[in-house]
Amino acid sequence: MPQKITIVIVGGVAGGASAATRARRMNESAEIILLEKDEHVSFANCGLPYYIGGEIAERQKLLVATAELLRTRFRIDVRANQECTKIDRGAKQLAVWDRLKQEDYELAYDKLILSPGASPLVPPMENADAPGVFTLRNLADADKIREHAVKTSARKAVVVGAGFIGLEMVEQFHRLELKVALAELQTQVLPPLDPEMSYPLEKALRDRDIQLYLGDGIAGIMTDERGNASGVKLQSGEAATGDLVVLGLGVRANVQLAKDAGLEIGATGGIAVNRFSQTSDPDIYAVGDAAEYPYGPTGKQQRVPLAGPANRAGRLAGEHAATGSSAEMPDVQGTAIVRAFDQAAGITGLSMKMARRLGFDPLSVTIAANHHAGYYPGAKQLALKLIFAKESGKILGAQCAGIEGVDKRIDVIATAMQMGATVRQLAGVDLCYAPPFGSAKDPVHMAAFSACNYLDGVDTFLESDADLEGRQVIDVRTPKEVSAKPLAGADHAVPIPVDELRQRLGELDPAKPTVVSCGVGIRAHAAARILRQNGFSDVQNLSGGALVREWAVAKRTTE
Amino acid sequence: MPQKITIVIVGGVAGGASAATRARRMNESAEIILLEKDEHVSFANCGLPYYIGGEIAERQKLLVATAELLRTRFRIDVRANQECTKIDRGAKQLAVWDRLKQEDYELAYDKLILSPGASPLVPPMENADAPGVFTLRNLADADKIREHAVKTSARKAVVVGAGFIGLEMVEQFHRLELKVALAELQTQVLPPLDPEMSYPLEKALRDRDIQLYLGDGIAGIMTDERGNASGVKLQSGEAATGDLVVLGLGVRANVQLAKDAGLEIGATGGIAVNRFSQTSDPDIYAVGDAAEYPYGPTGKQQRVPLAGPANRAGRLAGEHAATGSSAEMPDVQGTAIVRAFDQAAGITGLSMKMARRLGFDPLSVTIAANHHAGYYPGAKQLALKLIFAKESGKILGAQCAGIEGVDKRIDVIATAMQMGATVRQLAGVDLCYAPPFGSAKDPVHMAAFSACNYLDGVDTFLESDADLEGRQVIDVRTPKEVSAKPLAGADHAVPIPVDELRQRLGELDPAKPTVVSCGVGIRAHAAARILRQNGFSDVQNLSGGALVREWAVAKRTTE
Repeated sequence: MPQKITIVIVGGVAGGASAATRARRMNESAEIILLEKDEHVSFANCGLPYYIGGEIAERQKLLVATAELLRTRFRIDVRANQECTKIDRGAKQLAVWDRLKQEDYELAYDKLILSPGASPLVPPMENADAPGVFTLRNLADADKIREHAVKTSARKAVVVGAGFIGLEMVEQFHRLELKVALAELQTQVLPPLDPEMSYPLEKALRDRDIQLYLGDGIAGIMTDERGNASGVKLQSGEAATGDLVVLGLGVRANVQLAKDAGLEIGATGGIAVNRFSQTSDPDIYAVGDAAEYPYGPTGKQQRVPLAGPANRAGRLAGEHAATGSSAEMPDVQGTAIVRAFDQAAGITGLSMKMARRLGFDPLSVTIAANHHAGYYPGAKQLALKLIFAKESGKILGAQCAGIEGVDKRIDVIATAMQMGATVRQLAGVDLCYAPPFGSAKDPVHMAAFSACNYLDGVDTFLESDADLEGRQVIDVRTPKEVSAKPLAGADHAVPIPVDELRQRLGELDPAKPTVVSCGVGIRAHAAARILRQNGFSDVQNLSGGALVREWAVAKRTTE
Repeated sequence: MPQKITIVIVGGVAGGASAATRARRMNESAEIILLEKDEHVSFANCGLPYYIGGEIAERQKLLVATAELLRTRFRIDVRANQECTKIDRGAKQLAVWDRLKQEDYELAYDKLILSPGASPLVPPMENADAPGVFTLRNLADADKIREHAVKTSARKAVVVGAGFIGLEMVEQFHRLELKVALAELQTQVLPPLDPEMSYPLEKALRDRDIQLYLGDGIAGIMTDERGNASGVKLQSGEAATGDLVVLGLGVRANVQLAKDAGLEIGATGGIAVNRFSQTSDPDIYAVGDAAEYPYGPTGKQQRVPLAGPANRAGRLAGEHAATGSSAEMPDVQGTAIVRAFDQAAGITGLSMKMARRLGFDPLSVTIAANHHAGYYPGAKQLALKLIFAKESGKILGAQCAGIEGVDKRIDVIATAMQMGATVRQLAGVDLCYAPPFGSAKDPVHMAAFSACNYLDGVDTFLESDADLEGRQVIDVRTPKEVSAKPLAGADHAVPIPVDELRQRLGELDPAKPTVVSCGVGIRAHAAARILRQNGFSDVQNLSGGALVREWAVAKRTTE
């Protein structure tokens, strides 16, 4: 029989509620106390933007596990509005502030699970607390934003930060028929992605007249005569006016409580834990946005403030605290996805820029292909970028942008990464195929085939944003395609259709560094192979063809 | 530089065309000859049913790689209507029958790639060749069926065989507003699946008034006074009448040519090959439906007549023949999917019945969950069955049935299987999550968590079709749920809502073998944990709850 111990969990939602319920299932005898400083112990925080925009119509739907359910089904002593203010590790005792009664009390624990989450970052600036300035972290925040956006005469919203939540808020404000401005310090939306892969999403925003201020950070909040927010002052001096401002500038891990208790803080600012989610004090666990996780692509610990890892870590910590199980927290890959309008963009593992920053020697290929068989109605094009280690071929990351099927490709590659796979192994995955669902050669295969070609020296890929000056550029598309959309940033490209290439080799200089491009890279591969076998000593395939080139050049010129 | 060799490929479409184009890309100097006995060297055979039903409107769309393209872009000597009739391995020479000129000629090869495909099985029976009886393998077949279904006064179609093509044809005939009857020798549609997992598809057919004859094989073709097919006589004596008959009884590998040449034939009747697709003669390769492949779940060679492996094997064989590369054909998992009406069903690896037949000691869990966050509009329930080895926890297979997101879950698990993963590793995959795409705990996680619980003795699962007589069955759903849909095949089930279970333990006998069930298995898991920790010595969770139980009992009674 499991021990009669007292497990106290500080913080509900994803990590804490998962820990509490798993602990109960593993240990009927334990006393399990869940302290939550806010009103709701568990709610769907990822659903908040959709509730604000009305896409999720009922607020009730967001309350995934009510206090009542946790009490009756799991016999958890749920205490909302209770804030843990101090951990006395020697006495194994907490100081708790009851926000309703406005009084302190002490609470003993045998095992303590910290799930304090993170707080929205708000930089020190003028009028940061003016009415009409919001951050979005919990239901109360969502209620306030919704109230302001729907019930006042608000006509324009300013969103600051083009990360996941920022983009979701832009879409939902637009859905509410507000004009929207979006400001982002980076020169691209969705900064975790490489610039060119973020462009389809950026274009989806521009097509809907979202005012974009890229490469421009927030300097302060502007207010009207009554002191209400009237927009955002940007570092460039520009002003983005609006009736409400939502700050989506990322989060700061809530580690003060842990720090004050002398628990070790990791290199990335989260609470340091081992594979059992134990902190430097083995009776204290940390999970969720405040903790660090083993990050697959680097093998190091880092913060990954996402719901998936929080849920899994919470569950494992609850189990370990309740019974001392041997189940370890697996690596996380930082897999994430966002939808804005009809566009989705997903990522797993490292981007190319991050891989370089971390000192990897990464290679990448980008392909574009239909999300299901092209001959079956409704096929939508997606772009898939695969990043891998030059020596080992190990997959380091992937990004996908498109309208349909983005999540599937990212999940397949994230799964392969979880198993430590190389691009060679990825080329062999046996995916399901029927015309409404995929292709016999899936985009995942096409990307992996290209990567294997790259490793084997069969084809070499040039990144889509490369400077093509001084190179012999051959555009192997048909004349009609070339005139409809010339290859961006390559006025000197020589148009020779792939099907004429063998006959027209005499027009080219085999000694010159040569780049071949087509629509998305498939014909260019055939062309590159012809050139390489006809005495051209330096041939590269422009990754992603004219399609991705256009995105890359568009991003290059905005920088 | 690659060698000037002659590569002859016998058979186009998926395997042959992939081999030809890869061979050319790898070797500009080779002479590459592609012999195809029919008219089209490459077409989308998986699209044929959709073309017949008009969902794919243009026939042209099915011609994915025309002879013209293969000639100009890849300099392949494409020879349609040419049948290879003999291989002289000593002389490295083929006898070829030119179907147009009606004459024989000889053709020398250095490397030979056989991609002869498979032929539809037609059992010996009365009137098998009557007008109005069809099989579906190539474009000419599709044209004939379409012509008959659309241009004659046909009002009812009989499809024999409820495999992938049979089901697709049923849907498409229904789309053409024909009445449809479907006969299948097995007692279920989609025989590769376990019976209960095939039921949602079966129900989709029944809901559309498709006449089903399950567990009843074809005995002969009935004809009218003019000798045209008028339906199918079944082994039971029943008659399924109709104006046209499509036989979808599976395929037989076309191995005669290889056999006559003395090439080794494998245990499952396909041409035996190594990881380079080389037959017992290293200058002769075999790919596609006629070849065997390394099959992951068993580690043995077997036939897997699917488009994905054919494409990958063709590509690798073409490369090896052209340059002697070292890339090996990876394991295949037999991953497949089919859609009929709004229902999709997918499978990878072994079913439970097949795992048992092959002597594995398999365990399985079945879960049901929403395809994306339940609180986000449009969530559809899917059922996911995960099959794994009792000792090692290695994933053996998976099946998924639902309306949305079936392909993604099957592909994630197929990818994990490709890497030899266990259910413990699967539990840790880091999948992308935003409300429109998934859940923080994806159905894949839920299935893997259950499997880990099973391996760890935390919960034990009873298969959904089990006989519940003599067991103490506790239905832990709410009274409202129980009365709306009583647990199938368990009239003696005791209804005790999970939230009252702790208080009502006295009503139960802890010494009796006990089965707990709920809607889909989640509450039953909580209940099982309560019982196990309160002295109940033998507790099982009914896999998939009342939902999958209903399917299993429906299938049990049709057997």
